Amino acid sequence: MKKGAILVLSGPSGAGKSTIINAASKEIGEYYFSISTTTRPPRVGEVDGKDYYFVTKESFEEDIKAGNFLEYAQVHGNYYGTSLKPVREALGQGKLVIFDIDVQGHRLVRAKMNDITTSAFITPPTLRELEHRLRARSTDDESVILRRIENAKGEIKALGEYDFTIINDNVEEAAKRFVVVAKAARLKQSQEDEEEFIRQWSATN
Amino acid sequence: MKKGAILVLSGPSGAGKSTIINAASKEIGEYYFSISTTTRPPRVGEVDGKDYYFVTKESFEEDIKAGNFLEYAQVHGNYYGTSLKPVREALGQGKLVIFDIDVQGHRLVRAKMNDITTSAFITPPTLRELEHRLRARSTDDESVILRRIENAKGEIKALGEYDFTIINDNVEEAAKRFVVVAKAARLKQSQEDEEEFIRQWSATN
Repeated sequence: MKKGAILVLSGPSGAGKSTIINAASKEIGEYYFSISTTTRPPRVGEVDGKDYYFVTKESFEEDIKAGNFLEYAQVHGNYYGTSLKPVREALGQGKLVIFDIDVQGHRLVRAKMNDITTSAFITPPTLRELEHRLRARSTDDESVILRRIENAKGEIKALGEYDFTIINDNVEEAAKRFVVVAKAARLKQSQEDEEEFIRQWSATN
Repeated sequence: MKKGAILVLSGPSGAGKSTIINAASKEIGEYYFSISTTTRPPRVGEVDGKDYYFVTKESFEEDIKAGNFLEYAQVHGNYYGTSLKPVREALGQGKLVIFDIDVQGHRLVRAKMNDITTSAFITPPTLRELEHRLRARSTDDESVILRRIENAKGEIKALGEYDFTIINDNVEEAAKRFVVVAKAARLKQSQEDEEEFIRQWSATN
């Protein structure tokens, strides 16, 4: 069976993940960008089915019970999760599925789909630079910025769990490195299941 | 400190590792190909310092005692190992160091230098194809071929321990995939030590 591959991206809000993906998108070929499901209310400008799937707490909890999430977590009172169905569909079509999830989510994806997963931690060169970027874009109020900084300090410690670190000190350079990571991730694609391959490999003699 | 990165290649004799590296060499930039040290006698045409460093058993065992090997093993009564010194030098110059070592050697390199190591298992598409290639090149007598086949059957089982599998059914395609793997390996290069990076990252605030 042809199957896709997974590329998990993590890193602090403000690391430039979206910018890097956009800058690299022409060179990385077709991919499916996984859209998270959340119970937090949409912010101004956010579109359901594009930024997130916005659902009620009740609906989210039903899906948890039904085992419909690849990973989920509760953050600051809101649920965030990745629904299995669209991911399975995209993988079945042999696509590269890109996730923008946190350290905790990465661990859960690894636990379930390690053999087809590649991961990269994207970070600004320093915490000071992160703070600068968060303030410059000024979409968040001070308490949110401070919370993001605290989160970042915690998340950076998990950097060693990732296959790659991309330090975003220059978008063009970071995008180039991202292209290599995405191509490497695709190498795990459309390959038979490992155990099956090993079995068939030896069986031909 | 600038440091290099390691790319470990394993796979059965006859998988086409050298052919792939040669086909890809223009695109992967400067690298240092690690030369193994062995106590087995040179075969016809083999050159000391190119194919292997050929040494005596006494000399090899002295180096073991002195801790001069990154990895070593005894196979069919002969020692094979990788001396630390040239590897350290090449890494210190920020080079990509490529190893052609077996499954056991890969585990030892992982244990010692995991953070800068990328690995790929290179294999012909089937055992039958391997056997065909081994007989076609006809440099080995029948007992050697049979031993290589038995080794291959054992080694293929460790495929899951590698970052990448490169199935060599077509040298051109395999070389393209190898270029991606080598570029991915280089991403781990000239990056600061992870713990040091994390410390400095947070210290700037």
